[in-house]
Amino acid sequence: MKIMIAGLGLIGGSMAKSLKRAGYSADGADRPAVCEKALQAGAIASVARDTAAYDVVFIALPPDAAMDFIRDSSFAEGAVVADICGVKGALEKFVYSRPRAFRYVGCHPMAGREVSGFENSQETLFDGASMIIVENERTDREAVRLLEKLFSEMGFSTLKHCGAEYHDRKIAYTSQLAHIVSNAYVKSPAADGFPGFTGGSFQDMTRIAGVDEEVWTRLYMLNRTAAAEELALLIDNLKLYLGALQSGDEAALKGLLREGRLRKEQLDKEKKIL
Amino acid sequence: MKIMIAGLGLIGGSMAKSLKRAGYSADGADRPAVCEKALQAGAIASVARDTAAYDVVFIALPPDAAMDFIRDSSFAEGAVVADICGVKGALEKFVYSRPRAFRYVGCHPMAGREVSGFENSQETLFDGASMIIVENERTDREAVRLLEKLFSEMGFSTLKHCGAEYHDRKIAYTSQLAHIVSNAYVKSPAADGFPGFTGGSFQDMTRIAGVDEEVWTRLYMLNRTAAAEELALLIDNLKLYLGALQSGDEAALKGLLREGRLRKEQLDKEKKIL
Repeated sequence: MKIMIAGLGLIGGSMAKSLKRAGYSADGADRPAVCEKALQAGAIASVARDTAAYDVVFIALPPDAAMDFIRDSSFAEGAVVADICGVKGALEKFVYSRPRAFRYVGCHPMAGREVSGFENSQETLFDGASMIIVENERTDREAVRLLEKLFSEMGFSTLKHCGAEYHDRKIAYTSQLAHIVSNAYVKSPAADGFPGFTGGSFQDMTRIAGVDEEVWTRLYMLNRTAAAEELALLIDNLKLYLGALQSGDEAALKGLLREGRLRKEQLDKEKKIL
Repeated sequence: MKIMIAGLGLIGGSMAKSLKRAGYSADGADRPAVCEKALQAGAIASVARDTAAYDVVFIALPPDAAMDFIRDSSFAEGAVVADICGVKGALEKFVYSRPRAFRYVGCHPMAGREVSGFENSQETLFDGASMIIVENERTDREAVRLLEKLFSEMGFSTLKHCGAEYHDRKIAYTSQLAHIVSNAYVKSPAADGFPGFTGGSFQDMTRIAGVDEEVWTRLYMLNRTAAAEELALLIDNLKLYLGALQSGDEAALKGLLREGRLRKEQLDKEKKIL
């Protein structure tokens, strides 16, 4: 099985390294300097020149670059082509809008770090993580089974299946909203570098504040209805706490905090069951 | 030096254990069942009966209970009495509103866990953590020096000094706001127990959602001006992102994300310097 990885950044580089750990030998494509690093690290066997020569092509690029890559490449008939973008509806729409002889499967690894680039990639990045595989009536089952095997071998411990719309709504909440909140959180004038005042709560809240605005702006724009709905809902909820604080309504504030605590306990319970 | 700890929950229990590790022997007070556990664990030498018999009294109780305890107790003349409440202005106001022969120092350990109670206390809880010591013109310098020695021996690696108002504004931002955001975050209907969709971002954002509403409502009420100001500011900032999403203004969204990223990088840099 000939495997190619387009894009050798944090995710693509980690895919290459974890595939190598599992005994595979993948080729890669990226800018020359990045390919050189990946070759030197032994993460890829060689630089991929002809996309049509591969059985499996992983596209580990941001959404726009991924779509450009699909548009501009020739793939072998029946090749499994899987992107790992954080939005799936826009990718599906793009792929299905044109004739194709390859088997497309949208994927999204629930793994990341607040750093990027090949130099931060790790063969262990996916160990114990979850991979979302997006399916619909056009998805080839055999392609999915092949990918499931490769993802398991990369270290993923959970493989989830869902449709693109469900994915995009979920991701708007669990990831996109979190990045906006974290990014907005650091903007208070009270954030003036007095580290003795910050315990784990502040660290957790602001860990992902430093998003790459080029990449993330596009991710938001490609999923903006769902992202806006989640953000509007959070703002509405926060306003309830603000009202209780401003009016000194102790019972209301207690009720709000209690509701959140019970929800959190429920979530923790469901997590244990699922 | 005779040391007493009033309240043997997560913080008080950890103080007892870390003091013991440092070679001290403290007495403690709490409900009989808790004292029994602390005695059995060897965290305290005996149950404190007479507060007036101690040179140093740590009050590891929630704010209202701490104020009740101070009001109802007799302390030795010159005894060092230190509370560890998360709000300091209200405590100072209370202590200074009445005659006293003890030396009061407000403190606030920047350490905690999302669990509580003696059973979760640890001798290592404060290792590497930061302790805020609140000072003003009435604070006895010798008392502060004594506490600094004890806190260092408990494992705290950073000792910060500031006034109560500064503390309360900072804590409204770094801790109180974070707990409200986390508590509100879990309230989306999208939080329906599909754990495969959650990477580290969601976990970090919701780790502290399950606040004890009894304790935290009081903490907010005792610092509600500052807490409300920080929350209002965050809501205003979030609204900017929402506007950009709703109108599809890509440049505006990119600008907002960029601003947050630069602020985060600045904070990380300051942290390295300080």
